[in-house]
Amino acid sequence: MRNIAILGSTGSIGENALQIIANSPDRFRVVALAARASVGKLALQIEKFRPALVSVADAGKARELKSLIKRRVRIVTGAQGAIECATHPDADTVLAAMVGAAGLPPTHAAVCAGKRVALANKETLVIAGGIVMKEARRSKATIIPVDSEHSAVFQALRGEEMKTVRRLILTASGGPFLRMHLSQMAKVTAEQALKHPNWNMGPKISIDSATMMNKGLEVIEARWLFNTQASMIEVVVHPQSIVHSMVEFHDSSVIAQMGPPDMRAPISFALNYPDRLEMDIPRLDLAQLKALTFEQPDLARFPCLALAYQAMQMAPAAPAVLSAANEVAVETFLNRKLGFMDIPRLVEKVLNECPADPVNSIADVLAVDHWARARAREIMGRG
Amino acid sequence: MRNIAILGSTGSIGENALQIIANSPDRFRVVALAARASVGKLALQIEKFRPALVSVADAGKARELKSLIKRRVRIVTGAQGAIECATHPDADTVLAAMVGAAGLPPTHAAVCAGKRVALANKETLVIAGGIVMKEARRSKATIIPVDSEHSAVFQALRGEEMKTVRRLILTASGGPFLRMHLSQMAKVTAEQALKHPNWNMGPKISIDSATMMNKGLEVIEARWLFNTQASMIEVVVHPQSIVHSMVEFHDSSVIAQMGPPDMRAPISFALNYPDRLEMDIPRLDLAQLKALTFEQPDLARFPCLALAYQAMQMAPAAPAVLSAANEVAVETFLNRKLGFMDIPRLVEKVLNECPADPVNSIADVLAVDHWARARAREIMGRG
Repeated sequence: MRNIAILGSTGSIGENALQIIANSPDRFRVVALAARASVGKLALQIEKFRPALVSVADAGKARELKSLIKRRVRIVTGAQGAIECATHPDADTVLAAMVGAAGLPPTHAAVCAGKRVALANKETLVIAGGIVMKEARRSKATIIPVDSEHSAVFQALRGEEMKTVRRLILTASGGPFLRMHLSQMAKVTAEQALKHPNWNMGPKISIDSATMMNKGLEVIEARWLFNTQASMIEVVVHPQSIVHSMVEFHDSSVIAQMGPPDMRAPISFALNYPDRLEMDIPRLDLAQLKALTFEQPDLARFPCLALAYQAMQMAPAAPAVLSAANEVAVETFLNRKLGFMDIPRLVEKVLNECPADPVNSIADVLAVDHWARARAREIMGRG
Repeated sequence: MRNIAILGSTGSIGENALQIIANSPDRFRVVALAARASVGKLALQIEKFRPALVSVADAGKARELKSLIKRRVRIVTGAQGAIECATHPDADTVLAAMVGAAGLPPTHAAVCAGKRVALANKETLVIAGGIVMKEARRSKATIIPVDSEHSAVFQALRGEEMKTVRRLILTASGGPFLRMHLSQMAKVTAEQALKHPNWNMGPKISIDSATMMNKGLEVIEARWLFNTQASMIEVVVHPQSIVHSMVEFHDSSVIAQMGPPDMRAPISFALNYPDRLEMDIPRLDLAQLKALTFEQPDLARFPCLALAYQAMQMAPAAPAVLSAANEVAVETFLNRKLGFMDIPRLVEKVLNECPADPVNSIADVLAVDHWARARAREIMGRG
């Protein structure tokens, strides 16, 4: 029996996880659920999964939630509430699926508490990878990635040694604009960018897929997760999203993890690790797919990917600046107040002003994050 | 330091293995070499690798060999000589790379002696899989496949449990006649059939690739090696020979092992197992390859594949009959005395007369093998 806390239970990853949990009631028990504002969904989850603790954004949302549920459940709020969920003493496994930098403090808390952490929050490692991985070594927390690419690398590395690895090869779908004429890219709308060809995901990650910032953040994440360096991580565009990623070993052997593009697979893998639970997902039919194609990423089309590699060569704060400026840019794009190709422009401007100070604590990271957001907004206001 | 005996040292696998060994003199020592008739090559190998024991086909070849070498080395002959090489007390690792049923007795002897066996001889498991795997469990011999497909499955299974496997998916290049008009297939010459599009291999295995009997034998081999059943093993045609094979798990995840088509990779993997030794083989460049394609095998074009699946549903002796009849057919085809599409016809005829007796010992297997060869020759003489 695994006792689970879910941070971000009403998002896409959280809901998929609860579906997996519902299908294996003998294997999982839900201890805590943290959501931000979707109290309607959360109320239904509480009735169905009976957690001991739930967390929402603030007192107003807590009151709203209380009015929707019949069960008695402890409700906590804010950043501290999410941390309480992440460190609940009954939880052995924490699914960290909050979106954005807000996910860092509770995820860090789960790592400090030595939990098994199924990690879906990208920012945790992007902006605080050094701190979090060091803490995980101390606390003996196991971090299992949920992202399909990192899950693929993680699976490809089973039974292998990192010292025999030559390259990690992350695949990228290329998103909805892989074949669009470059001159059209600036006019892309939020509606177009939200339509990912293969994956059904939340809005932030869909836009990041369209700009390939998503892949850039994944490269940074992979560097920390697999304790390697940027020069050993490559990105290859693979529009079918069937090969989720690969590891090349120094004997020339490449291990690839493949499957239908269905997030339930890596979520299930992370929640059940080291076991593989049977999943009702259709078989991969390669003969029907006919061809898997691969191409180099076009950095003129996807400058965000180059910016991510650039950030890894800059000051320690640079990945946090990259990520925060991108969050602001994407939010503004989704509010129709920024053009699609202005996303990398804005990120680059903020990145170029990145402070040179060291980043030694979560407080340092969050300070950098706040600075970068404010700076991004300031530049936009000026522009 | 690994002490190696090579059965079939002058063949394609044997020579590749010796090249790997020559590149890592700190890691390997050659204890014994067994060859059949290529005494010129063997003499050079003896001077270079200084084995304690060598074996050749007969006394005539032994005299010829003696006249070619300066070093003092013990020379043994015949089937018993090969067994002596396979069980040399100083050898911890035996590369079983003899071609055909003649490879069975020495490979079986290595397994009985509890050696680490790098298995390249297909017939060992095809014709005596039940006996050999049972013996391996008793003697605690480790069997590591050398065939690229089985090596791929073996690598894909690292760190995994067989009970979580849904399918093994063996890839097949389809050989040189994948796109030939069916009406032309009967007129195929030995020269055409020997030209494999991707792999550089010996003549017997090249013809077996062209008929896809090779894949059929591999399915039978995989059944024993991975202790599974025919219904869980599928074949998919993949003309680029980049994905060497795959394993699908019951959570829908597929692990594929890929790489440039270079036999040194699986040979090195088997000789160094469980370590991965660095190899000077070019990196896989997927963006340059552009596309990996997959299709269902066409059983009208490749009846040998269907015959292999059929043999697994018949009497225990059937795979041995299939393999022996095929060896005779291929030999006769290479001597220009049988048509290409007569290979499956001859094999089918002999298979249909397969004796129903149980097969409990290597002697039983060899008796079946002799019967099938004689019967195949008899049918050809009559036809």
